[in-house]
Amino acid sequence: MPAPQRPDAPRFIDLTYQQVGALPPSTVAVLPLGAIEQHGAHLPVSTDHLVASSVAEAAVATVAESGAAHALLLPGLAYTKSDEHHWAPGTIWLGWETLMATLVDIGRSLAVSPVERLMFVNGHGGNSALGQVACRELHRRFGLKTFFAHSSMPRDQGGGLAPDVDPENGFGVHGGRGETSMVLHLRPDLVHMDLATRQVPERMAQYEHIGFGKAVSFGWTSDDFGPGGVIGDPTGATADHGKVLFEGAVSKVAAAIVEASVFEIG
Amino acid sequence: MPAPQRPDAPRFIDLTYQQVGALPPSTVAVLPLGAIEQHGAHLPVSTDHLVASSVAEAAVATVAESGAAHALLLPGLAYTKSDEHHWAPGTIWLGWETLMATLVDIGRSLAVSPVERLMFVNGHGGNSALGQVACRELHRRFGLKTFFAHSSMPRDQGGGLAPDVDPENGFGVHGGRGETSMVLHLRPDLVHMDLATRQVPERMAQYEHIGFGKAVSFGWTSDDFGPGGVIGDPTGATADHGKVLFEGAVSKVAAAIVEASVFEIG
Amino acid sequence: MPAPQRPDAPRFIDLTYQQVGALPPSTVAVLPLGAIEQHGAHLPVSTDHLVASSVAEAAVATVAESGAAHALLLPGLAYTKSDEHHWAPGTIWLGWETLMATLVDIGRSLAVSPVERLMFVNGHGGNSALGQVACRELHRRFGLKTFFAHSSMPRDQGGGLAPDVDPENGFGVHGGRGETSMVLHLRPDLVHMDLATRQVPERMAQYEHIGFGKAVSFGWTSDDFGPGGVIGDPTGATADHGKVLFEGAVSKVAAAIVEASVFEIG
Amino acid sequence: MPAPQRPDAPRFIDLTYQQVGALPPSTVAVLPLGAIEQHGAHLPVSTDHLVASSVAEAAVATVAESGAAHALLLPGLAYTKSDEHHWAPGTIWLGWETLMATLVDIGRSLAVSPVERLMFVNGHGGNSALGQVACRELHRRFGLKTFFAHSSMPRDQGGGLAPDVDPENGFGVHGGRGETSMVLHLRPDLVHMDLATRQVPERMAQYEHIGFGKAVSFGWTSDDFGPGGVIGDPTGATADHGKVLFEGAVSKVAAAIVEASVFEIG
Amino acid sequence: MPAPQRPDAPRFIDLTYQQVGALPPSTVAVLPLGAIEQHGAHLPVSTDHLVASSVAEAAVATVAESGAAHALLLPGLAYTKSDEHHWAPGTIWLGWETLMATLVDIGRSLAVSPVERLMFVNGHGGNSALGQVACRELHRRFGLKTFFAHSSMPRDQGGGLAPDVDPENGFGVHGGRGETSMVLHLRPDLVHMDLATRQVPERMAQYEHIGFGKAVSFGWTSDDFGPGGVIGDPTGATADHGKVLFEGAVSKVAAAIVEASVFEIG
Amino acid sequence: MPAPQRPDAPRFIDLTYQQVGALPPSTVAVLPLGAIEQHGAHLPVSTDHLVASSVAEAAVATVAESGAAHALLLPGLAYTKSDEHHWAPGTIWLGWETLMATLVDIGRSLAVSPVERLMFVNGHGGNSALGQVACRELHRRFGLKTFFAHSSMPRDQGGGLAPDVDPENGFGVHGGRGETSMVLHLRPDLVHMDLATRQVPERMAQYEHIGFGKAVSFGWTSDDFGPGGVIGDPTGATADHGKVLFEGAVSKVAAAIVEASVFEIG
Repeated sequence: MPAPQRPDAPRFIDLTYQQVGALPPSTVAVLPLGAIEQHGAHLPVSTDHLVASSVAEAAVATVAESGAAHALLLPGLAYTKSDEHHWAPGTIWLGWETLMATLVDIGRSLAVSPVERLMFVNGHGGNSALGQVACRELHRRFGLKTFFAHSSMPRDQGGGLAPDVDPENGFGVHGGRGETSMVLHLRPDLVHMDLATRQVPERMAQYEHIGFGKAVSFGWTSDDFGPGGVIGDPTGATADHGKVLFEGAVSKVAAAIVEASVFEIG
Repeated sequence: MPAPQRPDAPRFIDLTYQQVGALPPSTVAVLPLGAIEQHGAHLPVSTDHLVASSVAEAAVATVAESGAAHALLLPGLAYTKSDEHHWAPGTIWLGWETLMATLVDIGRSLAVSPVERLMFVNGHGGNSALGQVACRELHRRFGLKTFFAHSSMPRDQGGGLAPDVDPENGFGVHGGRGETSMVLHLRPDLVHMDLATRQVPERMAQYEHIGFGKAVSFGWTSDDFGPGGVIGDPTGATADHGKVLFEGAVSKVAAAIVEASVFEIG
Repeated sequence: MPAPQRPDAPRFIDLTYQQVGALPPSTVAVLPLGAIEQHGAHLPVSTDHLVASSVAEAAVATVAESGAAHALLLPGLAYTKSDEHHWAPGTIWLGWETLMATLVDIGRSLAVSPVERLMFVNGHGGNSALGQVACRELHRRFGLKTFFAHSSMPRDQGGGLAPDVDPENGFGVHGGRGETSMVLHLRPDLVHMDLATRQVPERMAQYEHIGFGKAVSFGWTSDDFGPGGVIGDPTGATADHGKVLFEGAVSKVAAAIVEASVFEIG
Repeated sequence: MPAPQRPDAPRFIDLTYQQVGALPPSTVAVLPLGAIEQHGAHLPVSTDHLVASSVAEAAVATVAESGAAHALLLPGLAYTKSDEHHWAPGTIWLGWETLMATLVDIGRSLAVSPVERLMFVNGHGGNSALGQVACRELHRRFGLKTFFAHSSMPRDQGGGLAPDVDPENGFGVHGGRGETSMVLHLRPDLVHMDLATRQVPERMAQYEHIGFGKAVSFGWTSDDFGPGGVIGDPTGATADHGKVLFEGAVSKVAAAIVEASVFEIG
Repeated sequence: MPAPQRPDAPRFIDLTYQQVGALPPSTVAVLPLGAIEQHGAHLPVSTDHLVASSVAEAAVATVAESGAAHALLLPGLAYTKSDEHHWAPGTIWLGWETLMATLVDIGRSLAVSPVERLMFVNGHGGNSALGQVACRELHRRFGLKTFFAHSSMPRDQGGGLAPDVDPENGFGVHGGRGETSMVLHLRPDLVHMDLATRQVPERMAQYEHIGFGKAVSFGWTSDDFGPGGVIGDPTGATADHGKVLFEGAVSKVAAAIVEASVFEIG
Repeated sequence: MPAPQRPDAPRFIDLTYQQVGALPPSTVAVLPLGAIEQHGAHLPVSTDHLVASSVAEAAVATVAESGAAHALLLPGLAYTKSDEHHWAPGTIWLGWETLMATLVDIGRSLAVSPVERLMFVNGHGGNSALGQVACRELHRRFGLKTFFAHSSMPRDQGGGLAPDVDPENGFGVHGGRGETSMVLHLRPDLVHMDLATRQVPERMAQYEHIGFGKAVSFGWTSDDFGPGGVIGDPTGATADHGKVLFEGAVSKVAAAIVEASVFEIG
């Protein structure tokens, strides 16, 4: 699914167990966290899974090509914590207990191998909080060095343009310009631009303290924002913009992987 | 990864949520259950994941091509219940609670959509028992019609040749002739035949009641059978045999999918 | 409850803790798994509990009498995983988590004693899958040698007559000829033959791949098969047939216990 | 196991599901809670199970004979919460989560039937606290009327003689005069009086506030009291005393069952 | 909130971690268990929290002042197991699993420090049973010496006046004379005596075996006793009586703390 | 503990259940989340609990005084998710499952009352991620409007000075200048400035992508940063700076409460 000119990323699962047993501890195992969840009328439910997997794969391939570090791609998790889209057909989501248990089990398993470094590349904002809980848990319980990167920084977590120059006013959280552009770049055949509609909760701009990326966060599900499932404005999305976003993400994640391979605290 | 001449299988996750919402209830969602686990010195840890995914994808593609039923491929689970290989680097396994929770969450999610039929295509013997527990749980709690198929019938569950004509004497349970042949067919570049060695627990043949496929089953982990991780004899494996096994599996699973699309009890 | 001419089986719980502490490691602890669940209008809800307990007790007594091995009867579990009969008054069932937790706790406890071998004698088909999960769990976590035997091999797991010579066509899964005969032998006072009716899901015979004992299993609850709670044909059941089944089961389980007392893998 | 002259108690599990479905709501289902746990060098690990089952059975039989209420015996739980004896071979114990889950599942199951009243007859002091938690849980969640009776009131919960006239000074908590006498009455063949030794924690008498039956309770396991497993003085136990205790318990539990069949709050 | 003339109790949480690390093992950590739950129309939902915290604080202060032992007050748990008042706005309750998990986590944490003795001072009868389960669990798993004291002995657990001289006939379980008097002493501004009404389940006096403080306990929720939320008779409550109760409780708990600091079993 | 000139905050728990039942739905319930955890040699283990409680109390008092909204203070949670300080005596921490269960139970309880709005005021960075998971869970399951505010924005979550003008270079995460100043303002008697030492992980500044407040977060426990428990530089802390921080926090949280009382999505 990633751009075809990319070299293949080396894969953890192509190795035999004895080859895994001989890996250097500096190896960075890279695990994409996607989501299968509604993304409005114009995007496939695979959107986050597609983006996270593609960015992670290309970043690992980039690192491998450069020889700057030893990184291996792990099979990603397609089903993650999409509870905010629970209402929609096509959303397949794990509860927080289930996703945590899965991440803990993966860490517990890796700890049997020499691999000490694990980076999540996350494509779904709804995983960020729990992913950080998991990073600490895996570090504390299994001694793993854990990292949590984003295939695109969520807007409700500080990513994206500054609100004043942003056509979405900082509300491009789900199915908006960025994500739509990414999918237009990666899998244009899956995008229904004729069904893309602007759905920006303008009213929320009035709040000074509470909101996406503001000092006080709030609990929401995507049906709070009206029907349609989009929070943002996909209408201006283009494949060219998606290419820029994608390549930017790949190069940032690749650089982070290299850093992770030598990262030491304190 | 499946043989290139296969048409692509239609994928659930390529749809928008509204398209999922419009699916006919007779749709069969097909979910491969693989495993990432040691498979001896000669096979990749992806073996079961590779086989399950490839068979499921080809079977769904076959059904789609024939028009005999409406089936969609779901993203498979790479990490499943490989507790019997917990000792090996490269095995990444979920505890039974975690895998059950995952399957329950998937079923709970599907129940929001019109899709009422879910078939697991399992490539890892260690999932069979829990998978059947899950099939009942999803049926009871969410009303789903659930099915549990095998990408190759496990030898310890009645599959394979009769012991008297079987070069592995019924012990080809893990990394043996069948699985090795399958991977030689699907991904020959990942097989290290020079490291394939026969490892058959001949001594167990003396037991009349207890054993693989016998009346009384027993609890085991793969390190009970000595070092090496294989239970069986991969030395006679060939790609041609793998092709026969693979195509046989695909056609059986495809036929089962068609049957599942109209299956009614009672 | 078993036939009165049987000698009493030696019981684990008749020992003091110091006597337990002095048992030889080759001792086989035998734990019946019954069920309290609806068995149609003609059989008591104790059916599976009665059969499993009676077979296990008689088998342990047989072994003790023969001196071929050291075996002890443990108190059976009357309440097990009867979720498929959840709809019926009189069914008392544990969820899969609860039953697994129970089996794990029992194994964890046994591991404090010198007893290393534990055989379940199961009378309820709905326990088979989870029981196998438990056998592995207890083996992996506590080092126990675990065995899973059946007081009568479930028809949906390969037991019984071949379908072509079977008056129930392979559908004698619950409350049918075999179980009814067994209870007629063991506790004729509890059988209401006047209420026994044939309830065979003939329609399912049309399916080639999906079905009891076929390649693809399916999730079901007993109310899927219509009211009445029976799946099979009890009308031809006799105490004589039950005696044959019972004595066959006892002698097979007794032989399996002897085998288990010396069983070694690899 | 109970005294042979007793009439048999009517058993819930002898009924068909339709008979259960026709029971009057005033029926009291009686469930013995025993324990399989070390009871010192002189008593079998079945002690609490034996006492609870025998008392419950005889009490239900007494009620049935009298016709004063409709009561049915349920299969007892042999394995319960004996965590305080976890160190001893022969103790088979459930964790508190497992026992609660079991009791909740039983209550959830009963709630499908017309039976609204459930009385536990408990023979193991270590179950009392959790049993009360369960009684409330089953009442709140399933609307059951739940009751918790003792086959002998635990000394650390106010039962037994007043300390000043008590030869065990109130420390006859486990394997002491009362329990030993009960087993001498019920199953003298299982008692090793030659191994019975006095083991009374006299030192604890110095505490005014903390202790068995005092204002402040404390957490203990039985190995806190030294080796041997007894807390009390079994040396003066007799079958005659056991008969008095047993018959007293039976008549109190029988009377409580009758009361429970008409009990209304408020 | 406690009477102002009391000296402040020394607090665990005022220490630095190194000061905690230097505490003597004989230190008694004292943890109040309150509840936030409906207490009728006349008392605040804080009643049990207020009483438990005030008694514990004053008792720790008393001990500190006397120098008889080393005790430290821990932050209390305001939210505990008030499932019997689940129906009422203002009740904030933890499920039994949650409260047990909390107590286990606290014990697991304390075990990292030198402090070996933990006393709960409980103000809510609904916590007593689970608290005792927890005391054993913390003792078994972490080796802590655990104690469970009451800020006032619950009437349904043997506290209070003998029924024959008790104006509430032993039914002063919740929001009755004792609790109301205590709050009149501690926080008279929070008591609405004009709304205090007698609500005594006189009918229950007819039961000989089943009832508060009788041989057989029963599962109840407070709405079983009619609307209003009170079980008892608060109308005769006075601040003077509360002062007596409070000071009595403080002096008993203080004495128990001193005893706990030297308590040894066996 | 807050500055004495503050008016008391109105407290939820001072109300009767009927008063709670009559609250307007716009009421904002405010729940402080503190922590009891090591804070270096110079600060008490109560630091986060003190700060969160004091800010929340003062903010609620401010709102009440202004009449701008209806807000009520709930008892805070002293024990929360301090797993990163698990190694230190004096840290008392809940596992993530326990804290989530607690927050879910609180939300489930509030949902019985008319109160629809719940704001957490968090003083411990380690709670932020899980707190956001909880906010969504409570919103989805119980329909509560949930808000997550900080008593001081964690530096590893974007709070504090820009690194280039920050004497701690952005590493003032735990026990540094800000927190120490706050405690100097609130409880100077508890601060041991003579034991305050600079402990800044300067080496981490070399990483471009991974770090506090950078694009990629990482799993850590506080002992990764060397002994001492501080991450930051408390040496320049002053009560005056603490007063500024405290009053700033109070006024921001008060404003957020007012906003929360009218906040609507979409």
